[in-house]
Amino acid sequence: MALIPKNHPRAKSLFIREKLIDGFDDGIVAKEGLLAHGRGEAFDYLLGEKTTHIAKNAIKAASAALLLAKNSVISVNGNIAALSAKEIVKLARIVHAKIEVNLFYTNDIRKRNIVKLLKKNGAKEVLGLDLKLQKRIPKLDSARRVVDKDGIFSADVVLVPIEDGDRTIALKKFGKKVITFDLNPLSRTAQTAHITIVDNATRGMSELVVCCSRLSSKNETVLKKILRGFDNKNNLRMNILEIKKNLSRRASHV
Amino acid sequence: MALIPKNHPRAKSLFIREKLIDGFDDGIVAKEGLLAHGRGEAFDYLLGEKTTHIAKNAIKAASAALLLAKNSVISVNGNIAALSAKEIVKLARIVHAKIEVNLFYTNDIRKRNIVKLLKKNGAKEVLGLDLKLQKRIPKLDSARRVVDKDGIFSADVVLVPIEDGDRTIALKKFGKKVITFDLNPLSRTAQTAHITIVDNATRGMSELVVCCSRLSSKNETVLKKILRGFDNKNNLRMNILEIKKNLSRRASHV
Repeated sequence: MALIPKNHPRAKSLFIREKLIDGFDDGIVAKEGLLAHGRGEAFDYLLGEKTTHIAKNAIKAASAALLLAKNSVISVNGNIAALSAKEIVKLARIVHAKIEVNLFYTNDIRKRNIVKLLKKNGAKEVLGLDLKLQKRIPKLDSARRVVDKDGIFSADVVLVPIEDGDRTIALKKFGKKVITFDLNPLSRTAQTAHITIVDNATRGMSELVVCCSRLSSKNETVLKKILRGFDNKNNLRMNILEIKKNLSRRASHV
Repeated sequence: MALIPKNHPRAKSLFIREKLIDGFDDGIVAKEGLLAHGRGEAFDYLLGEKTTHIAKNAIKAASAALLLAKNSVISVNGNIAALSAKEIVKLARIVHAKIEVNLFYTNDIRKRNIVKLLKKNGAKEVLGLDLKLQKRIPKLDSARRVVDKDGIFSADVVLVPIEDGDRTIALKKFGKKVITFDLNPLSRTAQTAHITIVDNATRGMSELVVCCSRLSSKNETVLKKILRGFDNKNNLRMNILEIKKNLSRRASHV
């Protein structure tokens, strides 16, 4: 990729993009992942390219849910691995979550590359590679339903950063508490998940690590209270309002 | 790419995406082109994935400008070639425009692949390959400023479907009348161009071909009147309003 001029109005977003493209060149990110990132960029742009206070509320609720979970799993795809490998490992350590590689466009070489990257960043165990442990999520087509018996299949809480709508719906029907990152507050994933963090996953994962670390000393009562105080539908509506507000502000300069 | 279920709520958008990915596999589209397409998809989604009456107004003005031009050029990059090669050739024929391959991320092999694709679709001459004819757009950095002496360099009207902000600004400063496709009504390209068609380029190019064909029998007075009646800033504002309206409509279902 060409050098990014430091004075470019959107340099930070371009640096993240470069990181993703490096991930593609390293066999971590799928072609479709580049497209998905582009979609995210557009919504991030409309949200002001910052972690809003609305997203921070969702991150707080997600932290409580992860800390309260008995058996949580972080589902890792190419994009989140390329952008936040270090944060995934940190988060797993703090909330005692398992890590499972689970790809929408399944591909064994890419899976192995992702596992390697996570281990390089300190992960001890990464699920999702062992064919003998493959189980299927009910009510979902094709390869996309395959998950690890000891991972997503038996989890109570699943963090699926950047996920497909059909899979999110199937996971929810299968009784999982679903936490997701999705920059489009109108997407089926955003609408379906129990907790939707409408934020750039790169920024949001760092924020989630900090928040989980901060709340890890709190007792169950406090965490449950945080969770009860969170309303996902309302949070999504506030995100839509935020986009509308930004559009109005910018439209006045046109 | 995986098979697209026909009942998928956004099947049409996924088919276009697949066409672009094929273009990538064929060495036509750049990695950055996949990301750019993703950004476009997000805005298209917010605009309702249809050519709005607002976009149709811009297309009408663009048709008039192209038909009035003395020396128009269609600037072709990887994305528009992969999605609309046939329409580019048709449009060039109707409005007597030249075709020039001009890439943001320059790459000789990709350039040749694009020329081959355009010729396969009926183009007689494609500019942009001859090193001896290379000229530079003033006030623009690096490889991105190189254009063809007989093409963009000497054109009065340039259609740049999907363009970078810096280049659009430089082209305008260089005295060109710039027509662009940009799904983000807030982008620098959208704000800078003389006529911005806020529409998916795949749909918009077909519409532009039809409109140019319809208006090609009109005389100069009629075409100039159409052009005078078009206000780009106002058109952009209406697009922003359209996005806000769609957000409100959808938010009520959340």
